[in-house]
Amino acid sequence: MSLTLGELATQFGCEVAGDPAVRISGVATLAAADAGAISFFANSAYGDALAATKASAVILKDSDLDKCPVNALISENPYLTYARVADAIFPDPPPDAGVHASAHVSETARVARSAQIAANAVVDADCEIGEHVYIGPGVFVGPRCRVGDRSRLAANCTLVQDVTIGKRSIIHSGAVIGSDGFGNAMSDSGWVKVKQLGGVLIGDDVEIGANTTVDRAAIDNTIIGNGVRLDNLIQIGHNAVVGEHTAMVTMTAIGGSAIVGKRCMFAGRTGCVGHITICDDVIVSATSWISKDIKEPGVYTASFPAEKDKSWKRKAARIRRIEDIVDRIKKLEKSSDDT
Amino acid sequence: MSLTLGELATQFGCEVAGDPAVRISGVATLAAADAGAISFFANSAYGDALAATKASAVILKDSDLDKCPVNALISENPYLTYARVADAIFPDPPPDAGVHASAHVSETARVARSAQIAANAVVDADCEIGEHVYIGPGVFVGPRCRVGDRSRLAANCTLVQDVTIGKRSIIHSGAVIGSDGFGNAMSDSGWVKVKQLGGVLIGDDVEIGANTTVDRAAIDNTIIGNGVRLDNLIQIGHNAVVGEHTAMVTMTAIGGSAIVGKRCMFAGRTGCVGHITICDDVIVSATSWISKDIKEPGVYTASFPAEKDKSWKRKAARIRRIEDIVDRIKKLEKSSDDT
Amino acid sequence: MSLTLGELATQFGCEVAGDPAVRISGVATLAAADAGAISFFANSAYGDALAATKASAVILKDSDLDKCPVNALISENPYLTYARVADAIFPDPPPDAGVHASAHVSETARVARSAQIAANAVVDADCEIGEHVYIGPGVFVGPRCRVGDRSRLAANCTLVQDVTIGKRSIIHSGAVIGSDGFGNAMSDSGWVKVKQLGGVLIGDDVEIGANTTVDRAAIDNTIIGNGVRLDNLIQIGHNAVVGEHTAMVTMTAIGGSAIVGKRCMFAGRTGCVGHITICDDVIVSATSWISKDIKEPGVYTASFPAEKDKSWKRKAARIRRIEDIVDRIKKLEKSSDDT
Repeated sequence: MSLTLGELATQFGCEVAGDPAVRISGVATLAAADAGAISFFANSAYGDALAATKASAVILKDSDLDKCPVNALISENPYLTYARVADAIFPDPPPDAGVHASAHVSETARVARSAQIAANAVVDADCEIGEHVYIGPGVFVGPRCRVGDRSRLAANCTLVQDVTIGKRSIIHSGAVIGSDGFGNAMSDSGWVKVKQLGGVLIGDDVEIGANTTVDRAAIDNTIIGNGVRLDNLIQIGHNAVVGEHTAMVTMTAIGGSAIVGKRCMFAGRTGCVGHITICDDVIVSATSWISKDIKEPGVYTASFPAEKDKSWKRKAARIRRIEDIVDRIKKLEKSSDDT
Repeated sequence: MSLTLGELATQFGCEVAGDPAVRISGVATLAAADAGAISFFANSAYGDALAATKASAVILKDSDLDKCPVNALISENPYLTYARVADAIFPDPPPDAGVHASAHVSETARVARSAQIAANAVVDADCEIGEHVYIGPGVFVGPRCRVGDRSRLAANCTLVQDVTIGKRSIIHSGAVIGSDGFGNAMSDSGWVKVKQLGGVLIGDDVEIGANTTVDRAAIDNTIIGNGVRLDNLIQIGHNAVVGEHTAMVTMTAIGGSAIVGKRCMFAGRTGCVGHITICDDVIVSATSWISKDIKEPGVYTASFPAEKDKSWKRKAARIRRIEDIVDRIKKLEKSSDDT
Repeated sequence: MSLTLGELATQFGCEVAGDPAVRISGVATLAAADAGAISFFANSAYGDALAATKASAVILKDSDLDKCPVNALISENPYLTYARVADAIFPDPPPDAGVHASAHVSETARVARSAQIAANAVVDADCEIGEHVYIGPGVFVGPRCRVGDRSRLAANCTLVQDVTIGKRSIIHSGAVIGSDGFGNAMSDSGWVKVKQLGGVLIGDDVEIGANTTVDRAAIDNTIIGNGVRLDNLIQIGHNAVVGEHTAMVTMTAIGGSAIVGKRCMFAGRTGCVGHITICDDVIVSATSWISKDIKEPGVYTASFPAEKDKSWKRKAARIRRIEDIVDRIKKLEKSSDDT
């Protein structure tokens, strides 16, 4: 879709510096942009790219306006405005309503007329599929699932059973929602499976990444709050609760029955053990692992960045002899006391 | 299914405290239970919930009986008894025998009459599918696979080829079994693929989690022993051997040709390098990594739990200067000797 | 296929020690080999197996010839020669050209006559599928994808959209290529999705493992260079660039917009944050994490191998009191100065 800079400014509450009549029909990086494209400037590292850009307009802060050689859309939060502008220029096409001839929909499922069920998708017994829902090719929607209006299930994802998804949520390809939690009791003859009987509740405006897994609860529900963002290859254990607007980057693992607060941010390869509670507004640094309750908002960390192998190995060898170091200090202290 | 407390006691060798005629038709947590539900008490943290429960009965140890306000099923191992009771009340339905019209079964495959092949599943050449096996929608069973009696392959999992699965095993959605191992030889012009020619042998009563991957061997077989439990998003490299009744929590990675003993427990995000041997009864703590043979049973660890970022960073900076610390001690020792 | 040792020697530029007329029709480990099988010796740990082997021939270095009890194929690089020999004996069968009756191919897709589209696969609008391409059962090839000659997409993998794959590349089962990158801007009412509008460019001779995810770019392309090897369960973030012939072992995570050089090797469970640059020929040790630019080739590490839990915990407790240690040294230094 093509919009003028003035129309974008009005729609998103920004000011224009330059020509409000210029037409915007695409987005691009500062470096690659040419006529018709809008770009954004939010990171001072790209100052040279801004100075040289051929974009038709750039979204930026008022304080950066003097560095901008072209038209500008002035915003307090250029990245957020960019997100809204990109969405306006490239709106999602509505689903192509109807059930593909090769899809299988149970007689007991209720599918809204405006929903699309694509090739080879399967919608099982007692499901409810809302208005304008998109269910992609090869998706399996197991028994008793409910998918709210305008949600989208990308190709080859799986809702195993008893999964409820709110409105406008997106489940990406390969994600598995509602698979059995990891419940095992040891007996004399080996592990006995603890039946997983609960479901998964996913709120509105949630996004769940490719090949991420969210297990069904043992009893009751695993819960993903409104507005949560899960990247690819994340694991959410059974009966865990992830609070609203919390975001987790790839390879985060949340243990069973853990309760994670609202607006938390888990960087890549983080996670927590099961059965703990993490309060709202906690940030976990990349690769760090939470092993007990957190009751105070803030940033939590435990990791060493990689360095040259030789230098690390020398240090690590000394660190592993820390007890020797402490013993030597004790000895020195004793001898100093004696003196 | 509905059973009396007395019937459950007889079936699982427990004693009843209270009314053996009370009917149990569901399971619930202590807090959520009401009439008809049985719950269990195995963690003293839930003492208040026990005192307030409205369950028809609670499975617990004899020593906790005095705290129980309702009927009780007395067991040495309440969690194990709960697992068995839940299975008795909610038995798995038998598969709906037959091949769905949209499934594709090779002419050279042998499928037991009691097995179910669901919509859009594909069973390739020379496969053998046993009695009461369930093969879910979208599953691909590649050439030369054998699936033993009563095993279940959940929707959208994949057996690539040459995979043999024993009896009563479960493969969850998105799991990929029998994909090529990671074998590459460097040449002057880049990596040359080392052909993966082996298979995967999976024992009886195994459970493999959603989106977990178990690679086919380069030669011979990758082996998963009887009773093994693998959680979601785990990787088992080519030619690895996982001993009977070993359990691994999410994001464990087992390197190629590693041999892991029986009854081991790998907590979340653990793993080991390839070509090592880990003896029976080893426990690996969360996020710890094994880099050489383990010959003695026990718990193995190397990790720091996350703490407040500022406090960690201060420590980490000092730890990285460990060599300076050692130098200063040496100097002090020298000066002390001189004194 | 069956070849003589002499034919193999000629084909791969090796010398024969022994009988060049012996026929080779299989491969095996030194221990399991019998008549007709060729094996290789590249790791001195297997010296006993070499001495006892019943293989018809062994690929090895000239310097190991005296330890070999059977015919030998002499090579500078036995593992590489093994890779080529195995490929010669077990050549990939060509795809079974044609579109399966249950596959769905868009009218606007162009599919080469020699390509195979297997059962239940879907090839969407404006795709181009090259000569001798194999597209396995249940694969989804989304709009505007291009798959180069002789590439193979294994069962149940997904190309979401705008993915271009070169020649002779392999995408394994469950891999998801071209799913949305993780882009979110915070607003007063929660996260706003940053539309992902770019694609993925994958070179020639690339291999991408089972359940690995490679995200589409926000703008422009995520790029995987020629000859790259990605193991299972890896994540490549949006707009990342992975240089030619770089290899990554399982559970590596590459952050968005990171640029990784050529011929790098990432061991298991490694990775890097986004927006950094790693030069060519960098090796990252298992479980180590890169958090800033690397400008010098070499090995980079930061990890502690697991040890007995008690011993680790004692050390870790002392390490966490490192500030106390430094304080005590300072005091000693002061007192020493005073003396």
